[in-house]
Amino acid sequence: MKNSVVITVCLILIGFLAINTACTGSYAEDRAAIVDLQGRYLFALDFQDAEAYASTFAEDGIINWAGGEIIGRKAIYEFMSSGTYNPASNAEEGKWPAASRHFITNQVIKVEGNKAKALTYWFQATNNTADRRSMVLGLFGHYEDALAKIDNQWYFTKRTIYNEGLEGRHMAGQSNPAW
Amino acid sequence: MKNSVVITVCLILIGFLAINTACTGSYAEDRAAIVDLQGRYLFALDFQDAEAYASTFAEDGIINWAGGEIIGRKAIYEFMSSGTYNPASNAEEGKWPAASRHFITNQVIKVEGNKAKALTYWFQATNNTADRRSMVLGLFGHYEDALAKIDNQWYFTKRTIYNEGLEGRHMAGQSNPAW
Amino acid sequence: MKNSVVITVCLILIGFLAINTACTGSYAEDRAAIVDLQGRYLFALDFQDAEAYASTFAEDGIINWAGGEIIGRKAIYEFMSSGTYNPASNAEEGKWPAASRHFITNQVIKVEGNKAKALTYWFQATNNTADRRSMVLGLFGHYEDALAKIDNQWYFTKRTIYNEGLEGRHMAGQSNPAW
Repeated sequence: MKNSVVITVCLILIGFLAINTACTGSYAEDRAAIVDLQGRYLFALDFQDAEAYASTFAEDGIINWAGGEIIGRKAIYEFMSSGTYNPASNAEEGKWPAASRHFITNQVIKVEGNKAKALTYWFQATNNTADRRSMVLGLFGHYEDALAKIDNQWYFTKRTIYNEGLEGRHMAGQSNPAW
Repeated sequence: MKNSVVITVCLILIGFLAINTACTGSYAEDRAAIVDLQGRYLFALDFQDAEAYASTFAEDGIINWAGGEIIGRKAIYEFMSSGTYNPASNAEEGKWPAASRHFITNQVIKVEGNKAKALTYWFQATNNTADRRSMVLGLFGHYEDALAKIDNQWYFTKRTIYNEGLEGRHMAGQSNPAW
Repeated sequence: MKNSVVITVCLILIGFLAINTACTGSYAEDRAAIVDLQGRYLFALDFQDAEAYASTFAEDGIINWAGGEIIGRKAIYEFMSSGTYNPASNAEEGKWPAASRHFITNQVIKVEGNKAKALTYWFQATNNTADRRSMVLGLFGHYEDALAKIDNQWYFTKRTIYNEGLEGRHMAGQSNPAW
């Protein structure tokens, strides 16, 4: 009698465990890591840190942008090192360097096991003007990210950069990419 | 010996269950779900997806905005379908469609059981200009959200839209709505 | 029977003890609390709530900004009360008050036990114009925060405010402050 009570309790608990996942596989933990990854991507981009930038991608990760596709962490590192994507602003004479910054908001993130999909708004701004005193807005759009958790760390496997200022890379007038 | 094995199994299972119960009821889990809900609301708004937009509200959810109050998921769906709230931009001849986007930041969120309150900054921008190349800023303000967790999912029960560009909907000069 | 009740109660208690080590020490929980703290800081700043503003700092917390260093929660409270840092906009005749707002994005946060480091982009905007209808962009930069968890709550121990619009407070052209 005593044993069967204990066993019944155990079976109920096993049922609950089968339905739910443990703490380490939680949505909040995965989302927190992914949003932090996205932040590190942007610091690396805006401060032209090719190594940190490339490290946010999986070994075979892909950037898909207006200029085409760059495949693999190594190629991504070389791409960023070249300064093609985010060239440094030339400081005007007697002025400190201008900053280019990309701001992200509105993350919608779905996690399924060790894979995830993230949608994120972005816009770009700079103070590359004579007085350096305020931001001037530039291009904007959204990111569509495929991500993977490898050795307990999240990486971009593919980042597709939509851009409302470039025909063919825009999404306006099309259907909602989120859910 | 047999009994102690059963008890050990139970101990482990109860431990995992307790962690899991605490995690799904944790601030981080609730906040992550709420911030994701807010993101889905904005993708739905900007991409004019009335169904996804309405689905972020509870069955009897309310929008309180400059135009008045819309009550209930069904009425909210019809409101969004009508295009009153966020009309599509007319593309100029020979141009791709312009995008209207709402960006949110600065979330302050308090959770109490299955209820929550969220405060969030928003601003609106568009590239509805001749060259489509950069954002032009529009209105801004903040959201005050009441939320409820129903069947383990968060919904807006009331979203109040404050708007600094509209007299009577502004909050400037008033006291801090946060804590 | 009595024994099994006692054992069950014990197991549940042990389970709840396990949570406290597993969940409250999680990255997601700490990040959620820190990001919420940052949000409350900005509501307090923009709505000129000196008390709420000072309460985001540890007792001996420090603000390091263009005007120098303010040391201690009490001094921070007095600084904010004086209106030096974020003066109220004068409403033009016949107009409602203008709002000044600081928006934050791109948080990169590293937690080590009861200490944390956070990097965050910010930009400032206002509608202090004749028609009040849209935001005008102002200064921008990033925050570098040192934080501490005291009695299970996160506080700023030092917030350093970098500003791209002020020579000497800018970071453009320097190396990536993130990782």
